[in-house]
Amino acid sequence: MRAVIMHGPGDVRVEEREDPQIIDPTDAVITIAATCVCGSDLWPYRGYDQPDHQHMGHEYVGVVEEIGAAVETLKVGDFVVGSFVISCGVCEICREGHPSRCVHAIMVDGEIGTQAEKARIPYADGTLVATPGRPSEDLIPSLLAASDVLGTGWFAADAAQAGPGRIVAVVGDGAVGLMGVLAAKQMGAERIIAMSRHADRQALAREYGATDIVTERGDEGVARIKELTNGLGAHSVIEAVGTQESMMQAIRSTRPGGSVGFVGVSHDVQLPGGELFFSAVHLHGGPAPVRRYLPELIQLIWDRKIDPGKVFDLTLPLAEAAEAYRAMDERRATKVLLTL
Amino acid sequence: MRAVIMHGPGDVRVEEREDPQIIDPTDAVITIAATCVCGSDLWPYRGYDQPDHQHMGHEYVGVVEEIGAAVETLKVGDFVVGSFVISCGVCEICREGHPSRCVHAIMVDGEIGTQAEKARIPYADGTLVATPGRPSEDLIPSLLAASDVLGTGWFAADAAQAGPGRIVAVVGDGAVGLMGVLAAKQMGAERIIAMSRHADRQALAREYGATDIVTERGDEGVARIKELTNGLGAHSVIEAVGTQESMMQAIRSTRPGGSVGFVGVSHDVQLPGGELFFSAVHLHGGPAPVRRYLPELIQLIWDRKIDPGKVFDLTLPLAEAAEAYRAMDERRATKVLLTL
Repeated sequence: MRAVIMHGPGDVRVEEREDPQIIDPTDAVITIAATCVCGSDLWPYRGYDQPDHQHMGHEYVGVVEEIGAAVETLKVGDFVVGSFVISCGVCEICREGHPSRCVHAIMVDGEIGTQAEKARIPYADGTLVATPGRPSEDLIPSLLAASDVLGTGWFAADAAQAGPGRIVAVVGDGAVGLMGVLAAKQMGAERIIAMSRHADRQALAREYGATDIVTERGDEGVARIKELTNGLGAHSVIEAVGTQESMMQAIRSTRPGGSVGFVGVSHDVQLPGGELFFSAVHLHGGPAPVRRYLPELIQLIWDRKIDPGKVFDLTLPLAEAAEAYRAMDERRATKVLLTL
Repeated sequence: MRAVIMHGPGDVRVEEREDPQIIDPTDAVITIAATCVCGSDLWPYRGYDQPDHQHMGHEYVGVVEEIGAAVETLKVGDFVVGSFVISCGVCEICREGHPSRCVHAIMVDGEIGTQAEKARIPYADGTLVATPGRPSEDLIPSLLAASDVLGTGWFAADAAQAGPGRIVAVVGDGAVGLMGVLAAKQMGAERIIAMSRHADRQALAREYGATDIVTERGDEGVARIKELTNGLGAHSVIEAVGTQESMMQAIRSTRPGGSVGFVGVSHDVQLPGGELFFSAVHLHGGPAPVRRYLPELIQLIWDRKIDPGKVFDLTLPLAEAAEAYRAMDERRATKVLLTL
């Protein structure tokens, strides 16, 4: 099969690899129907994280091709959506709703890699969710979004306690930030402030439910959020970047007693304890427990109540993965879908 | 009137000051019935914070002596318990349940000072709660505890989401940590692990509901908590110290998806963003919104369902405040009550 391999910063190639096989009885092998490039893939691409001939990709939808003897909830031919973290579904942590920190967790990225024609998915019952039937072609991008960016934005909004009567601010206008806007809208937020300085992303944010746009960043961005919220700050702030500046922007944009949901993978962040103490905010985040939300998200997509697939603004065949990375790196695309 | 003044580290004196007067129509002047020394008073006493002829004390119960024209919920002669933060009770932040970050918040410590015979309490309606009647003498220590340490321990347990089916660990065996144990027990926690190496505090922790004692600290303490929790960590961890070690001990003792309630005033703490991200814990803390809990706590004390006053293990007259500070500094006492 063909798979996307990152040989080093900026060096992405499509190469032949062995087809995956069932190893454990809880495995499934799936044929990938669509995959994509994640904002987090840009960290190694830009040399911030060290890639090591890494088999890339952790977002995926596909068709079950083969199952191990112990797989109970799936059958060959099912169309499935999976999370970017393999989770067993039965350990105490999974049962408590935090499958991304399952005691048997395996990161799909690197260890498995779904920017490929096929993938072996361990703990298939705990990781994959079958759609109600074979989806029509136009639903594929949205189902693929559920696999990570939608699930992550949804978690961020949930962690930030978005809901009726709440003012939500979103730091970061990448795919996850935009999904955070969509999620906050679905959760009934009263007002949603998207922080963005890109016209196309502002437009999509408005389409997804943003009521206000703030173009300022850092302390100026915080001041603007305060101006818009009677001097108090937002009730719920979604952080979808992962830098020191964005984390502090998120915490300082939150009113006392409010909540920050942070899902940007932290890079060189140090939070000052004293400021955090006196901020009196709630802080929750990390790798999103996407699997927890998948059944609900798939149903919303199936019923055409949400359209997260619009976040893909470029579609390329897997063979052109290198161009997909370049387009995202150069900000010519927000998120690229790879077809197979 | 007499009042406790800290002239510098280790230098506490009882001196004469002007009697307080009503200034604003929302003020009350109260005669202090009992006050005490807080663990946080030891930071300046030990020279970590800079005292500046500071009028000390922020915990208090007393009798209303005079009220301003706008005070509506209190009358002269009421016995009252107040929070260590003055709060208006009507701003958006107060109404959302975070009175310690009221937009008109005034720290009682320093600005008012209740280690004294009398005190002027601004925003009396938003700050003070009257007891159902004049309390009998033996209830005074417990009502005084509600003013800060009980309210703070209660908030920590609440922020850590202590409750039925939850394993709670408590970092810090000072008065607040012990109150955290009591609160977790009241909230129905399944198991409460107190981290303490002092026999007397271990005994009181057990009396308040601790089911396990861990004497190890830092990484060894974390390892012990993991051993006691099937390798996962506690669901709810109360942090009641405020140092880098105690914060990391608390975060690392918490299972993924669990919650840390941190109420130790942060001193030189920096939280590593990456570790916090992958820990997937909930973090909430800060100056406790004691006023939110006061009506419930007063009732529990009034009905003799809880006995937080046992946390006072030394009682001295106000005139001996210097000895009270020494006793706590030298760990001869957990918490000293000052009588008037």
